[in-house]
Amino acid sequence: MNELVPQDAAYESRCRSSFARQKFMTTLGARLQSVAPGEVVIELPFRDDLTQQHGFLHAGVVTAVVDSACGYAALSLMPAGIAVLSVEFKINLMKPAAGARFQATGKVVRAGSTLTVCSGEMRALHEGSSDVVAVMQATLMTVRGRSALTD
Amino acid sequence: MNELVPQDAAYESRCRSSFARQKFMTTLGARLQSVAPGEVVIELPFRDDLTQQHGFLHAGVVTAVVDSACGYAALSLMPAGIAVLSVEFKINLMKPAAGARFQATGKVVRAGSTLTVCSGEMRALHEGSSDVVAVMQATLMTVRGRSALTD
Amino acid sequence: MNELVPQDAAYESRCRSSFARQKFMTTLGARLQSVAPGEVVIELPFRDDLTQQHGFLHAGVVTAVVDSACGYAALSLMPAGIAVLSVEFKINLMKPAAGARFQATGKVVRAGSTLTVCSGEMRALHEGSSDVVAVMQATLMTVRGRSALTD
Amino acid sequence: MNELVPQDAAYESRCRSSFARQKFMTTLGARLQSVAPGEVVIELPFRDDLTQQHGFLHAGVVTAVVDSACGYAALSLMPAGIAVLSVEFKINLMKPAAGARFQATGKVVRAGSTLTVCSGEMRALHEGSSDVVAVMQATLMTVRGRSALTD
Repeated sequence: MNELVPQDAAYESRCRSSFARQKFMTTLGARLQSVAPGEVVIELPFRDDLTQQHGFLHAGVVTAVVDSACGYAALSLMPAGIAVLSVEFKINLMKPAAGARFQATGKVVRAGSTLTVCSGEMRALHEGSSDVVAVMQATLMTVRGRSALTD
Repeated sequence: MNELVPQDAAYESRCRSSFARQKFMTTLGARLQSVAPGEVVIELPFRDDLTQQHGFLHAGVVTAVVDSACGYAALSLMPAGIAVLSVEFKINLMKPAAGARFQATGKVVRAGSTLTVCSGEMRALHEGSSDVVAVMQATLMTVRGRSALTD
Repeated sequence: MNELVPQDAAYESRCRSSFARQKFMTTLGARLQSVAPGEVVIELPFRDDLTQQHGFLHAGVVTAVVDSACGYAALSLMPAGIAVLSVEFKINLMKPAAGARFQATGKVVRAGSTLTVCSGEMRALHEGSSDVVAVMQATLMTVRGRSALTD
Repeated sequence: MNELVPQDAAYESRCRSSFARQKFMTTLGARLQSVAPGEVVIELPFRDDLTQQHGFLHAGVVTAVVDSACGYAALSLMPAGIAVLSVEFKINLMKPAAGARFQATGKVVRAGSTLTVCSGEMRALHEGSSDVVAVMQATLMTVRGRSALTD
């Protein structure tokens, strides 16, 4: 799909610089692993202070990381100077988020001029295997011409 | 609706005790403000380390707190010894989550024997006014008979 | 909320005229019952040819009517010459859609310049009572300046 | 994934027989094209009486057919005598549903004992190409032991 051609050659550095300014990602200990045009991977090590009452990652943590992966997947295809905001998303939490390491992937399904649709997933990584613990479908909006909002 | 009659007279202390074990809520600085049958309110003061790249609360923070409010709204109606897990939710982020204090409300829309549907919202609280910045529609599942999973 | 002030005094006739051109609503036998600023009600009598395999209304029928109610709720607040398209929605089917008559309500939760968020519900109407069988949360987009797309 | 092994050798005839009883699919002119374990394809020819006000397929038609594809994908993996109900779904309508023929695909993402998660899509079929016009993420529930509800 030619939709997945980045319009800004510096897409990776732009995504990495924006991610570094998402203070909440630092708070969670999340790391931007890879940025390809329309596909972004974020890693998250398990931490006890990110859990819900049963000791699994809180649904909000899973959501935050997958949402950021979708957001940067969308941003990777945008021209310079454009911001991307999450309009809405839906996530299915299919299994308890149990494990030592997690990996969130966001992929662009359709990049439009105003709206981008992404799919995301969260995997729990084990020795030699992995489990998809959550899947997301997200809508993001391109924001132009608001100087306060650039990524 | 008689659906909103709690089946466990100790519903409030049970919700408060479970909330206290959600370590991620402590990490975020969220406080359980009120627990009524089928309706729970959680407060969240703004903190700079909870932000996305434009300085607003990260969508994942908004989601985490509203999801917990929905979860405890569902739990407030359950018999003792039953756990509640988030199956899935969808959230619309309608405005930037800007403000000094936020309030998440979760309400039970329908309590079934296996599945409970909740609606949630996040308000940014201002001097003398408030804004709804996000709305959620969530599905939660009752989990019985797994000793590791009680709330 | 002053968001719910219509910008086109002829909002009702515009919605009714557009609804009349939704041929699928005619196919379903749906009738536009009321149009208020930001709130629209559509009625649907039960018909056997609208059912799924257990004899209830098919989820797609429920969805179609609630989606149209949300769409016209959004359109009722728009200036003349603007079209509204459904971007996405999420619906919870809480009870079997059993009954002789149904009523879908769509309400605007937030009307933005580009995106409008609506909530919707479907009620099964009984003698002296009614049941909410489904709830929807929907995102709609304003489309300007495409002459082929006016409502 | 061994989740995608059918538990009922007669899965295809069971899905086809149930589909034949979905009267609304007949009303729409939808045809069950293929049934594989965990993946079902439904075809829908365009018809003028299925349109919204701009002449495209109504979102409710798109939704109905993709929802049925997801439902039968889930049912294809179930033991005999079990019914499947749609709990909720979310659909993104990415492009106008314009074309002469459409194809909905539903796939099981995770089959649990109570809940099954599916992804679905709707394609508009053209000469030598096709467009994904909508994507769905759906949750379905297994219903046991209610004699009135078997598929």
